[in-house]
Amino acid sequence: MARKILLVICDGLGDRPSAALGGKTPLQAASKPGIDRIAASAMHGLLYTIAPGVTPGSDTSHLSLLGYDPLGIYTGRGPFEAAGIGLKMKPGDVAFRCNFATVDSSRVVVDRRAGRIGEPDTGELASLLPEVEIDGAQVRFRESTEHRCVVVISGDGLGSSVTDTDPGVTGRPIQLASGLDEPSSRTAAILNKFTNMVIEKFSGSHVNRKRMEKGLPSANAIIARGGGVYPDIEPFDRKHGMSFGAVAAEGLILGICRVLGGEVVTPKGATATMETDLMAKGRAAVEMLGRKDFVLLHVKPTDIAGHDGNAAGKVEMIERADRMVDYIISSCSGELVFAITGDHSTPVSAKQHTCDPVPLMIHSGGLRSDGISSFDEISAGRGSLSSLRGLELMPLLMGYADRNEKYGA
Amino acid sequence: MARKILLVICDGLGDRPSAALGGKTPLQAASKPGIDRIAASAMHGLLYTIAPGVTPGSDTSHLSLLGYDPLGIYTGRGPFEAAGIGLKMKPGDVAFRCNFATVDSSRVVVDRRAGRIGEPDTGELASLLPEVEIDGAQVRFRESTEHRCVVVISGDGLGSSVTDTDPGVTGRPIQLASGLDEPSSRTAAILNKFTNMVIEKFSGSHVNRKRMEKGLPSANAIIARGGGVYPDIEPFDRKHGMSFGAVAAEGLILGICRVLGGEVVTPKGATATMETDLMAKGRAAVEMLGRKDFVLLHVKPTDIAGHDGNAAGKVEMIERADRMVDYIISSCSGELVFAITGDHSTPVSAKQHTCDPVPLMIHSGGLRSDGISSFDEISAGRGSLSSLRGLELMPLLMGYADRNEKYGA
Repeated sequence: MARKILLVICDGLGDRPSAALGGKTPLQAASKPGIDRIAASAMHGLLYTIAPGVTPGSDTSHLSLLGYDPLGIYTGRGPFEAAGIGLKMKPGDVAFRCNFATVDSSRVVVDRRAGRIGEPDTGELASLLPEVEIDGAQVRFRESTEHRCVVVISGDGLGSSVTDTDPGVTGRPIQLASGLDEPSSRTAAILNKFTNMVIEKFSGSHVNRKRMEKGLPSANAIIARGGGVYPDIEPFDRKHGMSFGAVAAEGLILGICRVLGGEVVTPKGATATMETDLMAKGRAAVEMLGRKDFVLLHVKPTDIAGHDGNAAGKVEMIERADRMVDYIISSCSGELVFAITGDHSTPVSAKQHTCDPVPLMIHSGGLRSDGISSFDEISAGRGSLSSLRGLELMPLLMGYADRNEKYGA
Repeated sequence: MARKILLVICDGLGDRPSAALGGKTPLQAASKPGIDRIAASAMHGLLYTIAPGVTPGSDTSHLSLLGYDPLGIYTGRGPFEAAGIGLKMKPGDVAFRCNFATVDSSRVVVDRRAGRIGEPDTGELASLLPEVEIDGAQVRFRESTEHRCVVVISGDGLGSSVTDTDPGVTGRPIQLASGLDEPSSRTAAILNKFTNMVIEKFSGSHVNRKRMEKGLPSANAIIARGGGVYPDIEPFDRKHGMSFGAVAAEGLILGICRVLGGEVVTPKGATATMETDLMAKGRAAVEMLGRKDFVLLHVKPTDIAGHDGNAAGKVEMIERADRMVDYIISSCSGELVFAITGDHSTPVSAKQHTCDPVPLMIHSGGLRSDGISSFDEISAGRGSLSSLRGLELMPLLMGYADRNEKYGA
């Protein structure tokens, strides 16, 4: 009988031996009795979420883990960020992730986050130009979390191979966007014109007058990056024949799941920061498993701790995730295929994404087990799943959940 | 920060249990404290240099290990042999590896190596016909190592699907080359005409008169095999974004590295025989690592010992390679990604290339390790790299050297 599937993805989970942890990885150093109790009767392996030697982003890796080859549909992070804040798009729309920024009179960027501006200022600024028409295309503009915002361009003949206007560093001017082909040149021209409109509109705005009075940097421009086209994508439920929901708090992951047609839930108290309430996520996942065939539970702060080089923080997040997992497993009635992995490695020693594969553990009643008593990168290297590629995960989970079809007779 | 990469390839390194070694493989039987000291903090796996079940040649496997799919560029060994002796070629040129041979008056081959002829006789003979024009194509002829020589044909409309003129055994006549398609038929006709010219020119030569006086077999013909077209190939440095050098002594490997645009060094004393000076190679590699991002160090005689069924000799070569590796590792300042593997297996029990995967070990400071204390075929089968394909090696090394680009955001 078909089983339900719970996939827990701890962002940036994979790590390397850490000097701060006596040469152990955070997963090795953490006390995680809940996960390790399952470990002993689970299958283990290492997962190259894209391919060996590829350092994945969180967007490309999540697509791959959910069974979508990013090579076919991924052109940039923009559309997923835009979907993350609830913007409706259609295939062919081009979206950019942007920052509210501070520029001087020569358009040189002096603060890439406009003094870490946030609500309500960002919402008020965005409302000055929510939607305009440029060169026959519709341009939508929305605030996102903190200093972030999104630009979506809809119209005929648009391309997404557009260079960033974000110079990436302070002290350099806003870059003129350019397109690598004819349709992308059209998009670039629209983005450049919209950037001009923003600068003109924001300079004398009520918000910025108030910010200047308080001595805060003026949010007098936007800088764009990560342009991508909204993909023409088969919804998850049709592709895999399973209803799909996700418990997540980070905009990017929410966006990816929305683009795939999933129901997304961010329970009260759950955030994309170290302060997130993981037990709230656990309860939401248990509730969702009552309604959905496949539930993705995303935990962000393991990645944050990795980027910060914070070994103790990563251990703590793993220990909190362990209590969440223990709660879910003990709360679920019926057979469940449970898998836990990462989307990529963010070693605390590297403070950035690396190509190291992530540990993967799959558990369900009655399956084989490896006799490995700890879920970690080193133990996983001895597991029976050996090494897998990201696109192989979904067929494997569906197979073990009795949700695949026999091939042949 | 980007690290340098040293890839040591011991030719034909992989083996099977050997009765002469009490059921151990040569790698298991050898005393190799230098390599095994690194082994304990390295990642291990088995590498199918082409694909499972494929018995690789040294040419196809080296191309694969260096990141070039041989299926797209490899048509025969000829061009790489020709490049190995320094012949300049351009894409589209067709090259053959040949032997100086002895034939009777009916062109029946009586000695495929003309009494293992060598310099200076081969050079003198080749100088009789260094370059001629046949059917509007340019034909170049050069002596190579020992009894070997090379024919390169340049011109329009040439193909490389040409059958060998070498009958492969004695007692059979030189074969008439034939082409499998129209352009290859043109090449075959030119090769047949050139073979006739050689036979005519060599029969009354000064060299052969002297050889007959000494009772040596006359080198009165050439027999050709391994025809291939010089590939239109992206240079290594452009393809991988790394400068490339190789320390090698065997013509084929030198040729492959030259075709890829690498700098090649054969230090004094380094040869493709059991008498090679491996410490000279080690010193050359250390020097080259000061100048190049990626260095290939090739060790030939492990393969020779395999072909000869010489278990003790293979063990000895591994022990000498161990001292070379130990010297290199202890001499290199700074972070280095170090990998050691083979290009294929040449088990002493088989005396030929086999499809067995080769052991692979990758080491660099701060990476994960498998806790495996010996570098050998059996231990590698338990390693975290599990089994990889040849084309996956270069991305993996570049990833661990921080020389890849993140895919996604």
